[in-house]
Amino acid sequence: RIRSDLSEIEKGDYGHFMLKEIYEQSAVIKNTLSGRVSANHVLEEAFGIKAKDIFDKVNNVQIVACGTSFHAGLITKYWLENIAKMPCQVDIASDYRYRNIIVRPGTLFVTISQSGETADTLAALRYADELGYVGSLAICNVATSSLVRESDFSLLTMAGREIGVASTKAFTTQLCALLLLSLVLGRRNGMTDESEAQHVTDLHKLPGLVDQVLELDEAIKELSISFADKNHALFLGRGNQYPVAKEGALKLKEISYIHAEAYPAGELKHGPLALVDDKMPVIAVAPNDELLGKLKGNLAEVSARGGKLFVFADESGGFDDDGDYKLIRMPAVPDVLAPILYTVPLQLLSYHVAILKGTDVDHPRNLAKSVTVE
Amino acid sequence: RIRSDLSEIEKGDYGHFMLKEIYEQSAVIKNTLSGRVSANHVLEEAFGIKAKDIFDKVNNVQIVACGTSFHAGLITKYWLENIAKMPCQVDIASDYRYRNIIVRPGTLFVTISQSGETADTLAALRYADELGYVGSLAICNVATSSLVRESDFSLLTMAGREIGVASTKAFTTQLCALLLLSLVLGRRNGMTDESEAQHVTDLHKLPGLVDQVLELDEAIKELSISFADKNHALFLGRGNQYPVAKEGALKLKEISYIHAEAYPAGELKHGPLALVDDKMPVIAVAPNDELLGKLKGNLAEVSARGGKLFVFADESGGFDDDGDYKLIRMPAVPDVLAPILYTVPLQLLSYHVAILKGTDVDHPRNLAKSVTVE
Repeated sequence: RIRSDLSEIEKGDYGHFMLKEIYEQSAVIKNTLSGRVSANHVLEEAFGIKAKDIFDKVNNVQIVACGTSFHAGLITKYWLENIAKMPCQVDIASDYRYRNIIVRPGTLFVTISQSGETADTLAALRYADELGYVGSLAICNVATSSLVRESDFSLLTMAGREIGVASTKAFTTQLCALLLLSLVLGRRNGMTDESEAQHVTDLHKLPGLVDQVLELDEAIKELSISFADKNHALFLGRGNQYPVAKEGALKLKEISYIHAEAYPAGELKHGPLALVDDKMPVIAVAPNDELLGKLKGNLAEVSARGGKLFVFADESGGFDDDGDYKLIRMPAVPDVLAPILYTVPLQLLSYHVAILKGTDVDHPRNLAKSVTVE
Repeated sequence: RIRSDLSEIEKGDYGHFMLKEIYEQSAVIKNTLSGRVSANHVLEEAFGIKAKDIFDKVNNVQIVACGTSFHAGLITKYWLENIAKMPCQVDIASDYRYRNIIVRPGTLFVTISQSGETADTLAALRYADELGYVGSLAICNVATSSLVRESDFSLLTMAGREIGVASTKAFTTQLCALLLLSLVLGRRNGMTDESEAQHVTDLHKLPGLVDQVLELDEAIKELSISFADKNHALFLGRGNQYPVAKEGALKLKEISYIHAEAYPAGELKHGPLALVDDKMPVIAVAPNDELLGKLKGNLAEVSARGGKLFVFADESGGFDDDGDYKLIRMPAVPDVLAPILYTVPLQLLSYHVAILKGTDVDHPRNLAKSVTVE
């Protein structure tokens, strides 16, 4: 017991907590799924005794969060639309709490926060309490937190203590919890048993897929050398990979102080293409989904303007490492899990770039682990 | 007649079409309001004969657009929430068109495009046609465009021909048209006659306010010198000023090739604060609205980290030009109009920075005026 507590606050062989936490992801994803899924089914009881009655009333979801947790919300919007055929609104807590929110009947209020003490998210929950939602659900990593205490019910992420300021394992376990939510709501809205079984079977493969991605560590470390002298970077993705690009850009910002920005690739021609030249590295997350053809068109524009491309894609995507771009070969992954899996190499990339830049990876300047004041 | 046509394609005394178009804004705003408002009332007939029946059914608004027009949509969300007490979803066209959209009953579909030929926006309209919206409204600058032809009804912006690739007068007239839409919907949802009269009276003052801001041109030109050697910039705003910050950052990107990024100020502590040092200019749009106190707290964090602040604020905001930041004194403005007015100085700033950088202002590299292919 004491040993296990100690391991949480020791880096072991890792140079930094962040790297240790990146490597813990397959294990903590497993922990987060444990007891919440059978072989082919989500075990709804995991959401607690109040959950069922609330879920039965839900036809719409409002998500509120900050920072990295906000990105988890943005990805969930796609899952809810595709799996649960339900609309979803995702807002930044510091914005939501000061707006005149109009709540449609049947809306579930969901907050996401690693610490459960994020000031704006807590304030949003308290504001939402008066607005007529059917219930409030907290996705949180700390069982004793204010957010969990003040919500109608919660689903804890089992990430263990996260010490690095830049969130990694908390984010991917949030996504697992939010995918379970999408499945539980999908079940009430036309998702077949076969479809649920397929998604759950896929989920069981996720820890193994994450481990496969971690094997790319050396290749990504080598890639990071290309960023050591850069001050800018552009991250591109389409659909549910745009939030992944946003999270990748945020990680790089937070710990390497490179000004990284994400754009939905379809918006390139509406402005950011003007920034592209041979000094602007462009990172693309490009799983083989139905938008890949469109993304390739966008990337061709970047190449034509002399932009240096770094592409994360699997073998079936048809990218060749032909010098026009640098390719990192990802494992093939079911569409639904792609946002979780493609997050991992971007974490590694930001870590290695930060090491080369010589920053204090676990304690980046100006940032705190939990933003408990407004 | 010929003279007036010629004036549209001649720069006159202005060095660039963009500057000419910035200066035309008070006139084209007047044109856009003309015939659509009486002294204290929106003249609903301006939306066409089909509009009334459609408006009567609306309880929710979905906006779809690209680039600068998307920013106009983001601002409109706040107007609809505050004036019409109606929820609003705003999506990027290249994302919307490939999603599984679930439409709630009573939703109006609104597209925004200067040219009315933006490929993704048109495709979104065609996709939306099958989804069960109560009607489709185009906010557009070209009466003969595909978008206008294929929508149920339209409200034209009277911006005249816009030649500069970076949109200026099209954007501010879009905002005027969208404010009229918000008032027309507000009228059906509890807005009092007095409130409408107040907003319309305010709108009549807008061209004069824009002219007052244009008088800041010399001061902003001087300010632009601080950006001549910069490669980055951060734009901050809260609430309905966040989209204004996004539009300001996009302008600077487009024509000066400075990597400018906007952030909702409340998100600073969740990452971007790590970027702030004495080489990172931070621009804040800070009208004296109910969020000003919160924004000031965020700006204090920037100052404490050595960031160089440039603040656009009016006299009542309590900012002193004391050296800790550079202040540009804006005229006082009613809250509802602040997003339109605060856009103008950011247009001037990007123009003057681009001139100093020596770029081709009217034809920035890699960009086209209308994005008519995907």
